Amino acid sequence: MTTQNPTGSTSTSTPSMKRIAVLTSGGDAPGMNAAIRAVVRSATYHGVEVVGVRRGFQGLHEGDMRLLGARDVANIIQRGGTILLTARSRTWRSPEGRALGADYLRQWGVEGLVVIGGDGSFHGAHYLQEEHGIKVIGVPGTIDNDLYGTDHTIGYFTAVETALDAVDKLRDTAASHERIFVVEVMGRHAGHIALDVAVAGGAEEVFLPEDEHPDQHIAEVVRSSVSKGKASSIIIVAEGYPGGGMAVTKAIEEQTGLEVRLSILGHIQRGGSPVSSDRVLASRLGEAAVEALLAGRSNVMVGRGYGGTTYTPLPETWEKRKDVSRDLYRCAKVLSI
Amino acid sequence: MTTQNPTGSTSTSTPSMKRIAVLTSGGDAPGMNAAIRAVVRSATYHGVEVVGVRRGFQGLHEGDMRLLGARDVANIIQRGGTILLTARSRTWRSPEGRALGADYLRQWGVEGLVVIGGDGSFHGAHYLQEEHGIKVIGVPGTIDNDLYGTDHTIGYFTAVETALDAVDKLRDTAASHERIFVVEVMGRHAGHIALDVAVAGGAEEVFLPEDEHPDQHIAEVVRSSVSKGKASSIIIVAEGYPGGGMAVTKAIEEQTGLEVRLSILGHIQRGGSPVSSDRVLASRLGEAAVEALLAGRSNVMVGRGYGGTTYTPLPETWEKRKDVSRDLYRCAKVLSI
Amino acid sequence: MTTQNPTGSTSTSTPSMKRIAVLTSGGDAPGMNAAIRAVVRSATYHGVEVVGVRRGFQGLHEGDMRLLGARDVANIIQRGGTILLTARSRTWRSPEGRALGADYLRQWGVEGLVVIGGDGSFHGAHYLQEEHGIKVIGVPGTIDNDLYGTDHTIGYFTAVETALDAVDKLRDTAASHERIFVVEVMGRHAGHIALDVAVAGGAEEVFLPEDEHPDQHIAEVVRSSVSKGKASSIIIVAEGYPGGGMAVTKAIEEQTGLEVRLSILGHIQRGGSPVSSDRVLASRLGEAAVEALLAGRSNVMVGRGYGGTTYTPLPETWEKRKDVSRDLYRCAKVLSI
Amino acid sequence: MTTQNPTGSTSTSTPSMKRIAVLTSGGDAPGMNAAIRAVVRSATYHGVEVVGVRRGFQGLHEGDMRLLGARDVANIIQRGGTILLTARSRTWRSPEGRALGADYLRQWGVEGLVVIGGDGSFHGAHYLQEEHGIKVIGVPGTIDNDLYGTDHTIGYFTAVETALDAVDKLRDTAASHERIFVVEVMGRHAGHIALDVAVAGGAEEVFLPEDEHPDQHIAEVVRSSVSKGKASSIIIVAEGYPGGGMAVTKAIEEQTGLEVRLSILGHIQRGGSPVSSDRVLASRLGEAAVEALLAGRSNVMVGRGYGGTTYTPLPETWEKRKDVSRDLYRCAKVLSI
Repeated sequence: MTTQNPTGSTSTSTPSMKRIAVLTSGGDAPGMNAAIRAVVRSATYHGVEVVGVRRGFQGLHEGDMRLLGARDVANIIQRGGTILLTARSRTWRSPEGRALGADYLRQWGVEGLVVIGGDGSFHGAHYLQEEHGIKVIGVPGTIDNDLYGTDHTIGYFTAVETALDAVDKLRDTAASHERIFVVEVMGRHAGHIALDVAVAGGAEEVFLPEDEHPDQHIAEVVRSSVSKGKASSIIIVAEGYPGGGMAVTKAIEEQTGLEVRLSILGHIQRGGSPVSSDRVLASRLGEAAVEALLAGRSNVMVGRGYGGTTYTPLPETWEKRKDVSRDLYRCAKVLSI
Repeated sequence: MTTQNPTGSTSTSTPSMKRIAVLTSGGDAPGMNAAIRAVVRSATYHGVEVVGVRRGFQGLHEGDMRLLGARDVANIIQRGGTILLTARSRTWRSPEGRALGADYLRQWGVEGLVVIGGDGSFHGAHYLQEEHGIKVIGVPGTIDNDLYGTDHTIGYFTAVETALDAVDKLRDTAASHERIFVVEVMGRHAGHIALDVAVAGGAEEVFLPEDEHPDQHIAEVVRSSVSKGKASSIIIVAEGYPGGGMAVTKAIEEQTGLEVRLSILGHIQRGGSPVSSDRVLASRLGEAAVEALLAGRSNVMVGRGYGGTTYTPLPETWEKRKDVSRDLYRCAKVLSI
Repeated sequence: MTTQNPTGSTSTSTPSMKRIAVLTSGGDAPGMNAAIRAVVRSATYHGVEVVGVRRGFQGLHEGDMRLLGARDVANIIQRGGTILLTARSRTWRSPEGRALGADYLRQWGVEGLVVIGGDGSFHGAHYLQEEHGIKVIGVPGTIDNDLYGTDHTIGYFTAVETALDAVDKLRDTAASHERIFVVEVMGRHAGHIALDVAVAGGAEEVFLPEDEHPDQHIAEVVRSSVSKGKASSIIIVAEGYPGGGMAVTKAIEEQTGLEVRLSILGHIQRGGSPVSSDRVLASRLGEAAVEALLAGRSNVMVGRGYGGTTYTPLPETWEKRKDVSRDLYRCAKVLSI
Repeated sequence: MTTQNPTGSTSTSTPSMKRIAVLTSGGDAPGMNAAIRAVVRSATYHGVEVVGVRRGFQGLHEGDMRLLGARDVANIIQRGGTILLTARSRTWRSPEGRALGADYLRQWGVEGLVVIGGDGSFHGAHYLQEEHGIKVIGVPGTIDNDLYGTDHTIGYFTAVETALDAVDKLRDTAASHERIFVVEVMGRHAGHIALDVAVAGGAEEVFLPEDEHPDQHIAEVVRSSVSKGKASSIIIVAEGYPGGGMAVTKAIEEQTGLEVRLSILGHIQRGGSPVSSDRVLASRLGEAAVEALLAGRSNVMVGRGYGGTTYTPLPETWEKRKDVSRDLYRCAKVLSI
């Protein structure tokens, strides 16, 4: 496309930074590659060089980094996982590790860092800025959609789609055998994935960590569902619900004597080619992160809300809680009548 | 789920209507079945009966209708197309037809009508209300996302996903043969599908009906793309762009001498099992339509905007234009550097 | 298509039977609906009526049956599960049950029965013929591909595809986190699914029930894999392998100290829209079953082998063992170098 | 896996060749990467080096080649297209080009060449052996399945699956609008893809290049289909049928006055991640090609037939015709009753 700068200023104008870095950290999420591509392409567009850090903070603290050009991120937008690799390492917790990381960034002449990940990763970024004055921008990359400050996180849409595809398949068997299936989906301490999957999958019931009465009478719930003349049932349980899918399965079997099949979807929800919504979100946020750095912002997460870009102080992203949509929860109950 | 009314009021309270009707009209869109299910289930929940009208306005004008119960819409949320069938018939244009339709609705004791479709369908609904005082609510059901008053329309997300899947497949061949592919996607007079597919597909160029300079130098555009060191190119063209994909293909071949492959995706974009976003949207809007009718509203389209339900007078949905996202368009150009 | 009989004889010639029945039994498998459709359409083509028995032998012993016409099986070829429902009920084991079933078949004037299922179902069919002289034909419908007498069973190709899709997704995470994943796939006492998934998924190792040395040094195997310079590993385990995926996971962790993720795919492997190979196989075998009955055959399973239709006495299908492909097993080991 | 040679001989025994080459040529097909991986891994296993030639014969004649190790082909088994790139270049037709290619192979010390492609590619391989005594083995890689000497070709299963997925989507719209859809699928001069898609898609009619009476009364065919009480129709036409889908569409519209939608699927049928059957076939044949070279074979295509590996002299692969399955064609007509 034409490289004339749509913003008016020309892309040859001297940018406020010469070189930035990008890393992916925490659990991998579909769309992380699309975000990396957007960071590299946007920076290149503005005449800024990009250093790719491998294996998240672990790699940062070990100086495992290399320059990334516009062509290095070609043909990755559709790939699951992250070409920069990631790690759940806790090295971001160690001041020594962060000091080493800060040194490497200075050695490489990096003036700003884009961290793609979840709240653990944002903690690390926050400390880097606090202790070493490195400008940091967070990009929400997690399937759990549990970060305050953005409508959705990168990877969430794909995880929901993958879980939904599994529910559709299980319904074939549930309907053919007139059986009850309990499906445990991911989401950490939040029920966002579970709720969307329950509504989209036409589930008979859903159990969320956000439930006000987790001690509700499960058996009664099931009986009411059976009493509705439904031959089969699909029940969605968020992994964060007390006891998870196993607890719900046991409770139903004990209280109704019915045979219940439990399916724990697990890690397949993290993989796969990202769906369009995640690729578009990642492209938008990757670009927004670079422009935020060039505009002098720091220690904020870029997100989307009310149809525009949002900027949330990193600490708020984990201190404030993003509740599930209460009206969607209500909708789920009404439509399962 | 428990049928106790989450809103507090009990579902046994006498509703303001005893019976409503629902129809799907215009081009079919993935998620229409999820919307029909939501209308029937929500009405049933509120103690209201639902009449399903077959083949859109054509069926309405012929009295082709039957009662639909909660179980009649079981296991359809994941199905493409519409169990009520649809028609592009122009009978909604004839006053006589509408008079006949109004008579049938009265005979069936129908007090409100939910119309799932696009602007043509909303015209028909509008006239029914104007001429015969029948309460009507529109639900945006079209893959084109070209209705003012809602962020997205039912079917849009699935159409984008289907087109994107095709683009991913074509890129395999484009990359292996170092070729240029022009892909024409649907969207009628709007470029919403084309723009999302271009960004998510990492396309080198996109041509929209909303382009300000459709006469731009295509060859120059292509040369610039080639000059970027890209061996292959994917160019997305909206069917509403002057001349469509064929015009762009010819222009590139004439001005560059390069061989270009044109792929017109066509009707596959209308079918398939709806993705989660379309199922959730359809479930929300189907429920909102019933509640709007019970609340006494009429002649409005229910939609989603700013994270909540929106109500737009039907005429505004086709009189006002919903522009494509200009910042996403800018993003597309920056990332294709 | 033209209803002129391709075999030469005209479809108006009096068939050797006036009415047959069909049922699906045991675990559901993708493609069972395509087989039901083929049985009904082929019979109709030959002027024979078809009775559909619901819920397998349980329904047969309760007389739960109805007539099925050519249009009743329209639009089901692409659906997972079985419209006739199925049951794992053991009623086929009871002589009394079989006597009741035989009575119902006589009352309905049924002269032949097509049983779509696995070896348990074929036992039931076998006894019906032995004790009550009812002509029976078996159609291999199981995802496990564990029936002697046919290259493949209906549902097998789809189950492999579903498991492979999961493995592809897990590899994204395995590669991004440089982790080891153990994936347990279905297949009952056979390793057919596991072997195909291992080869197609590029797995580093596969454990089958057919392994000659299940006590092989797992850790050594893993070390050798690590020594190959592979950062991540995907290990496929058939559910029929002693101890299943859990045993392999524990052994690896204990002997290497490495963290291993276990993923048990479970019932999603039974569902979903059948892939083309299963639909074509089901269409061929459904037609072959009807023609076998009309040709006077009984107590045999129709299958495919050496590019043609095969007929195997029902007892042989469970008495003889179908081994996994030894050369494919060898190929898997060579390619994982 | 253990690198101990399953065949008994040890992998350290001196192989009959020290270095071989591999190239992909002609139209790309899903599974070509799996075949390249199998060639490289099998050769490595036997202690033989592999040279990868880029862009088919064009690259060979320009000396565009590099060494490929076992790790260079990691993580490509699931990718569409070909990492070696391909070209439809006709340079294989020029003796001068072949002479140059032979020189490059000698310079690189290559003793045998594996050519993955269709009949055009096999012609080039054949001449290389005839004119320059280079040992060549052909691996059938084309979506058309039009090569004599193997039950299936690499890419065929995926192409059928992709076309079938499109047909399933179109049926949603066809059923919802009670419309007739004509779908043109690929296959060059053969109807293999069209026939499988017609049976698996439950099409009402199929037109193949192999039809004995292409002048049959289309309208009558359609009327008969309509007379069967079918509201909608899906008609599959092979691109090799005289006039293709356009001819059939026009004929139906002229003779029946009905509105018909034509959908030409095109190049999407070449792309996408290969399905399991193509990956397994490619893995088997890639290994078989290397072993054939090491066993001293040359100028043959390796394939699969009757459950084993087949070897067909290259000229026979294009001189002899592989007919479509006549009994499947008959089955298609019976099931569309």
